Amino acid sequence: MTTHTGRHFLQIPGPTNVPDRVLRAMSAPTIDHRGPEFSALTLRVLEAVKTVFATTGPVVIYPASGTGAWEAALVNTLDPGGRVLCFETGHFATLWQDMARSLGLVVDFVPGDWRHGVDPGSVQDKLAADTSHTVKAVCVVHNETSTGVTSRIADIRRAIDAAGHPALLLVDTVSSLGSIDYRHDEWGVDVTVAGSQKGLMLPPGLGFNAVSAKALEASRTTSHPKSFWDWKPVIEANKRGFFPCTPATNLLYGLDAALQMLLAEGLAQVFHRHARHARATRAAVRAWGLEVLCADEREYSGSLTAVLMPEGHDADEVRKIILERFDMSLGAGLGKLTGRIFRIGHLGHLNDLSLAGTLAGVQMGLELAGVPTDPSGVNAALDVLRSP
Amino acid sequence: MTTHTGRHFLQIPGPTNVPDRVLRAMSAPTIDHRGPEFSALTLRVLEAVKTVFATTGPVVIYPASGTGAWEAALVNTLDPGGRVLCFETGHFATLWQDMARSLGLVVDFVPGDWRHGVDPGSVQDKLAADTSHTVKAVCVVHNETSTGVTSRIADIRRAIDAAGHPALLLVDTVSSLGSIDYRHDEWGVDVTVAGSQKGLMLPPGLGFNAVSAKALEASRTTSHPKSFWDWKPVIEANKRGFFPCTPATNLLYGLDAALQMLLAEGLAQVFHRHARHARATRAAVRAWGLEVLCADEREYSGSLTAVLMPEGHDADEVRKIILERFDMSLGAGLGKLTGRIFRIGHLGHLNDLSLAGTLAGVQMGLELAGVPTDPSGVNAALDVLRSP
Amino acid sequence: MTTHTGRHFLQIPGPTNVPDRVLRAMSAPTIDHRGPEFSALTLRVLEAVKTVFATTGPVVIYPASGTGAWEAALVNTLDPGGRVLCFETGHFATLWQDMARSLGLVVDFVPGDWRHGVDPGSVQDKLAADTSHTVKAVCVVHNETSTGVTSRIADIRRAIDAAGHPALLLVDTVSSLGSIDYRHDEWGVDVTVAGSQKGLMLPPGLGFNAVSAKALEASRTTSHPKSFWDWKPVIEANKRGFFPCTPATNLLYGLDAALQMLLAEGLAQVFHRHARHARATRAAVRAWGLEVLCADEREYSGSLTAVLMPEGHDADEVRKIILERFDMSLGAGLGKLTGRIFRIGHLGHLNDLSLAGTLAGVQMGLELAGVPTDPSGVNAALDVLRSP
Amino acid sequence: MTTHTGRHFLQIPGPTNVPDRVLRAMSAPTIDHRGPEFSALTLRVLEAVKTVFATTGPVVIYPASGTGAWEAALVNTLDPGGRVLCFETGHFATLWQDMARSLGLVVDFVPGDWRHGVDPGSVQDKLAADTSHTVKAVCVVHNETSTGVTSRIADIRRAIDAAGHPALLLVDTVSSLGSIDYRHDEWGVDVTVAGSQKGLMLPPGLGFNAVSAKALEASRTTSHPKSFWDWKPVIEANKRGFFPCTPATNLLYGLDAALQMLLAEGLAQVFHRHARHARATRAAVRAWGLEVLCADEREYSGSLTAVLMPEGHDADEVRKIILERFDMSLGAGLGKLTGRIFRIGHLGHLNDLSLAGTLAGVQMGLELAGVPTDPSGVNAALDVLRSP
Repeated sequence: MTTHTGRHFLQIPGPTNVPDRVLRAMSAPTIDHRGPEFSALTLRVLEAVKTVFATTGPVVIYPASGTGAWEAALVNTLDPGGRVLCFETGHFATLWQDMARSLGLVVDFVPGDWRHGVDPGSVQDKLAADTSHTVKAVCVVHNETSTGVTSRIADIRRAIDAAGHPALLLVDTVSSLGSIDYRHDEWGVDVTVAGSQKGLMLPPGLGFNAVSAKALEASRTTSHPKSFWDWKPVIEANKRGFFPCTPATNLLYGLDAALQMLLAEGLAQVFHRHARHARATRAAVRAWGLEVLCADEREYSGSLTAVLMPEGHDADEVRKIILERFDMSLGAGLGKLTGRIFRIGHLGHLNDLSLAGTLAGVQMGLELAGVPTDPSGVNAALDVLRSP
Repeated sequence: MTTHTGRHFLQIPGPTNVPDRVLRAMSAPTIDHRGPEFSALTLRVLEAVKTVFATTGPVVIYPASGTGAWEAALVNTLDPGGRVLCFETGHFATLWQDMARSLGLVVDFVPGDWRHGVDPGSVQDKLAADTSHTVKAVCVVHNETSTGVTSRIADIRRAIDAAGHPALLLVDTVSSLGSIDYRHDEWGVDVTVAGSQKGLMLPPGLGFNAVSAKALEASRTTSHPKSFWDWKPVIEANKRGFFPCTPATNLLYGLDAALQMLLAEGLAQVFHRHARHARATRAAVRAWGLEVLCADEREYSGSLTAVLMPEGHDADEVRKIILERFDMSLGAGLGKLTGRIFRIGHLGHLNDLSLAGTLAGVQMGLELAGVPTDPSGVNAALDVLRSP
Repeated sequence: MTTHTGRHFLQIPGPTNVPDRVLRAMSAPTIDHRGPEFSALTLRVLEAVKTVFATTGPVVIYPASGTGAWEAALVNTLDPGGRVLCFETGHFATLWQDMARSLGLVVDFVPGDWRHGVDPGSVQDKLAADTSHTVKAVCVVHNETSTGVTSRIADIRRAIDAAGHPALLLVDTVSSLGSIDYRHDEWGVDVTVAGSQKGLMLPPGLGFNAVSAKALEASRTTSHPKSFWDWKPVIEANKRGFFPCTPATNLLYGLDAALQMLLAEGLAQVFHRHARHARATRAAVRAWGLEVLCADEREYSGSLTAVLMPEGHDADEVRKIILERFDMSLGAGLGKLTGRIFRIGHLGHLNDLSLAGTLAGVQMGLELAGVPTDPSGVNAALDVLRSP
Repeated sequence: MTTHTGRHFLQIPGPTNVPDRVLRAMSAPTIDHRGPEFSALTLRVLEAVKTVFATTGPVVIYPASGTGAWEAALVNTLDPGGRVLCFETGHFATLWQDMARSLGLVVDFVPGDWRHGVDPGSVQDKLAADTSHTVKAVCVVHNETSTGVTSRIADIRRAIDAAGHPALLLVDTVSSLGSIDYRHDEWGVDVTVAGSQKGLMLPPGLGFNAVSAKALEASRTTSHPKSFWDWKPVIEANKRGFFPCTPATNLLYGLDAALQMLLAEGLAQVFHRHARHARATRAAVRAWGLEVLCADEREYSGSLTAVLMPEGHDADEVRKIILERFDMSLGAGLGKLTGRIFRIGHLGHLNDLSLAGTLAGVQMGLELAGVPTDPSGVNAALDVLRSP
């Protein structure tokens, strides 16, 4: 076991590097969750978080992971046996539809190659064919954390409208919220699912549902058995700054601090920063002579970049060398991509020099693993980073 | 608004005062939840936590509140429409059976006066009468946080056995685990439900299910739709130190530290400390001339003491005065006890002098609120605390 | 060795309980002490700290203990062999004149009984007799930390003036600043010496000199060899927000936070709080049937109370019992008072209920040590604390 | 003002990046500095710190900056008017002899070009010429923080011995201790001066004197007036784990943690790590086509590298661009090197990828400032870092 000195490079696509300001905020003593100080905190946080979702509607915060927020989105809006349309954009889209099946829903799962986002044309075709409107919801992962491919939500919205279909649109933004431009209201999303541990720069432990009026209306009549995930008592208690269950107080302290940081930087700048870091990373990948997994430039992720290994080279071996030698964690290939890709997370609390260090580590790791690469990757990234 | 100096007295029956050592542990940087360092943490925590539950079986940890762990206990062990036997020992017992109904279960709810625990004789009678074994589970709250009354779990186990009934025994230990003697295995409990924010001395955000072999067996065949709460993938992934969903990493850091503290003090001493503090508190209550809500001395809670107000006095007014003047939070009366009681939490990270300060604040608050009391309460408590 | 649970009661007369907000502020990453962010911090802190000293002149902050600030006061204002007038009010006054002797100064040390402050009449007599003005400075400890006796600085100023003597007035406020009313400018003090670890609610590690124009003028011509303690380069560099030596950055973060807390509470309220806590403590001491060391009610300390033991009882034995049984640290008798008194610190970040817990611990400790006492002390204190 | 996201790069040659573990240790509550817990801490720290100085003799720890420790070294070992031999190796050597003069000592200051360390031959010549042994001490800065040049202490020791001169050897290791191989006992150093904020990975606020038997003997008879800096009462009180003045408790918590980290890594590995990072940095500097200030390869610093700017280019302009654009602090040229060099700190809690990020920032900053450079610096450094 190597002793490591200096700060660990946590460059997986989430959990991300939590700012020390947020960690300090989280270390304040826990308070009475039914007292006036807590109420003021809740009301402040609930207001600020709407800006990040770009919504004026309610945002429900759960003491749970993003996976829990997936479940909440489904059980609030759908009846048992309800039909949902899902798209195989990658590992997490697959897990989400697995969950839908486990919860007793019927899933239309449109196959995909894990290198493209959801095709809006396919959405329109599927829904237009569903003339009896048996499909109750369309589930889309905005940013596939397993592939670094985004789906174009605004276009998908337009496709649903073009089909004249009443299905709800449920979107997973776990690894895009606070990193990639996202607009719950403007894009007509019905439920936006998110988690704390990525662009929101918090440890894991909070799940989010932003809820449209239409989704809220649906939740009033759906018959899926639910209690913990039920939106209604949360939204009701939130009005006075409270929660029906004991909330994750110290994570809310952190959320308060993180939202202040995001809004002080400005969301436009936050998105620009992520896009620029993604561009620098792709420049490095190409200069090394490797291939970015995402096959459509309109769908590049601002949060992470998945790198395809040349034939005969094991991505996990590269990751292992990099972890042991340079104390950096990278994301593994998941599901059918195991060993074939590694993923560089460049989201959250990150700056140019940490990204440069990250890419330096990847470059050295590739060389040490014997992967044939051109050592010009870091410099190609610096060419991007030299401009603001 | 008064400016308060000095440390807030958080004397609600949870969340409790988190030790600064635990808060510091929680402020360590978030790490890769799929890396070797995290795996070692998980395995260490899962082993230590068993000691606190007094079990050798699996303990499932959710990134969720105790309420979530309630839901997990139900959906893993019961089929839709399954019948459960619940007892009205207080507000939380009522909420748990409300949850069971919301989840589509059929509930036999035995009424109670909120001053007694579950009557083992009643359990035996109800189950003996259920000759066709339609009752699938008995749900008991070990320590009713709303009343400060405990139920005698070992006796309830004996009652079930005496009735020769195969029902599962599900026990809520949210406000007793790590505070009041509890033995999952020895008492034949099938699912023990707990949360992080009470005797475990952590902020809220973790929920627990200790699971018997019989409960695990039941979960393999029950048909309640479940995904997030499903024990199986958690227990499977835990074997190598991982979780199927992103775990609440920083709360697990805190759990690691808190378990070390509890085990260093020794559970026997932990239980003795709580019982002694409860005794000192009751001595104060009686010396003031007030009544302890719990009506049976075999059922006194080691975690909290609920104090009945004399007729014509509003407990919430007393609490308000104490909060404003002495910066101490006490628990309110809940449900049908609103305004009639206040609750003094004396669980978790607490010592004699903090308890003395707490009781001093209550004594002054009662006097300031014009509640007729004898000012000998604090001294009566000190008479108890003077002995180890 | 007993395992202690709950928060340690640190009731020595300093270091005091550091607010967790200050501890968190101190845990921010260290920054470049020559950069713009640090400069802004310094300028903000230097401005705010003046309010606490009640001065418009410079305050020099050293990365040192209060003892260092004693030395700084002497070496900046006096020539080798210079004559200073000191008063034996207790242990720290004795140590300060010892230091003066070690530094080569000539000390007139007026004896005292350790139960009274400096007699202004004595100051006037001594100075009036010094017709050739050989005395260059009068050194007074405002609040004797070893005895809980204050000296009346305004009266001493008047005595110096009445004697028509040009001596400088050097005052140690280590255990009074930020706790007991103090006015550097109004009272015509030339150098006020302070430390971080008492009323300023910080850990030890910062020493302070507030400097009058007259003292600054003196420092320009004195010939005591000095470098680290030299005021001039500090005051010069401070103008732009910097220090000539590397400053104790993280303690300055803490000072910034602590000053914000003190000024938010308001100094008048801070002084009132301390005086009230001192009054409650004396009420307890008398109700126990014990004697407060301070013999003149005009000189009671707001920061601490020294309690005289009855003949035949060892104060250190009482302290030992209290530390082991109740996890509370009290101050020992120092120098000639060793074993004869113990000291209760009630300064800094303290509130009513913590004081009540403190006094409860003392009451139980006295009883356990077999000291004959009436157990009405805590209640006598609560009678005081019940009023705002 | 730019909003910065991500972690600031603090690459000045001290204060260095404090590990978050050390910051957390420092945020523990302050304890009684006269109690048993503190005593145990002191004894543990005093033992561990000896290993870092490579001494078996006493190490005196002051609540003060390294500058204070300079003063302590002088006033304990020298009489007023005593003669010391100093060498102009850079800015800090100059400041130290300035201090000596301020304290009334007589200084022989051997001029230097700020690109070389102390010439042992010169030491021998000077001392051999001092046949009447009027020189009482030789003062050497081991690692000149202003230039990145080390002096060869073992050779200097041999030079003193070769001259048969009894002068004491006083060595400043402020920016070398815990970074560059150093041996107090083996090299016959009499006083080693150090500070907390560099290789010891702490915030500023502690100063150190390691003291030889000969120096301790000298201190018993020297007549320099002293009190705060006096070694004797500190060494005496340290025997039982205490200090004569209030120590900087929370910085000692940090020291305890930092020493554990250094000794767990192993000093040999710590020195290797620093030397390797220095080598990588020099490789980058040369690849850029720039010049390292240090002119003798035997004297390269492991802690920092000073980079000479080409004629017509202002180092401070480069630093300003790098601070604004990349949120990295570099060291300025000091004294006669102002504007002519910048300094890259690579000491303390640093790893390969942070160094790579640092050098990437320097490379981009140089380009943006229009300094003619070859963009191969980072890659040259990676060629070094790729090997362990």
